[in-house]
Amino acid sequence: MPVLPSPPPNGHVESDCRGVASVLARVGDKWSVLVIMMLGDGPRRFNELKRMIGGVSQRMLTLTLRGLERDGLVTRTVYPTIPPRVDYDLTELGRGLSEPVKALGTWALTHLPQIQTAREKFDGEGEDR
Amino acid sequence: MPVLPSPPPNGHVESDCRGVASVLARVGDKWSVLVIMMLGDGPRRFNELKRMIGGVSQRMLTLTLRGLERDGLVTRTVYPTIPPRVDYDLTELGRGLSEPVKALGTWALTHLPQIQTAREKFDGEGEDR
Repeated sequence: MPVLPSPPPNGHVESDCRGVASVLARVGDKWSVLVIMMLGDGPRRFNELKRMIGGVSQRMLTLTLRGLERDGLVTRTVYPTIPPRVDYDLTELGRGLSEPVKALGTWALTHLPQIQTAREKFDGEGEDR
Repeated sequence: MPVLPSPPPNGHVESDCRGVASVLARVGDKWSVLVIMMLGDGPRRFNELKRMIGGVSQRMLTLTLRGLERDGLVTRTVYPTIPPRVDYDLTELGRGLSEPVKALGTWALTHLPQIQTAREKFDGEGEDR
């Protein structure tokens, strides 16, 4: 599958490749992945998300949500209460993405020990290579 | 699912979170994703990979393969021919990762038009928000 900018001999469309890379970059961003996972059970308010995720700054969560909204993955709904209430939810598109993202997150968590062992072994071999 | 560094109230292990984030970062790296996908059909030589991927520099492909080898996802086998032949292949661990990665790549390619449309709409609304 073509995924990135390259000369045309493979017959793939360069703009597609750049686009797919930009989607993958979103998945490589841990905050985006966490928000997508946290919204899997239904809509959440900003402060709920902040509390659930932990360790994310106000500004970073705002930027993350804005990026996900821009990509059409998350909706932002303002209710005219006092104080105003703002809910975030996955769109249908975001819900579709959450499936492969969850599969990946689960894989990562399950196989983390193996990867960490591999890294230690590789680093230990150091100058041999 | 806990995925990153945060204060302990959620009861998750901080080192796990950092580790999972580092695995996700690998998936957000388009070159790593491409190598994992290209090796899905069996072992390849360096120059084959370079040609298949296209647009990747010698140095970047070398670094990518080294990182994947370090993570225990890819093996590097040198055959003592003249000139020496070097094959790269997925490990069992790498083969396991390639499944969710492929699902994600396929999702990204399929839904790219929707994401691009969403981005244009969002950017067009510009100052309204």
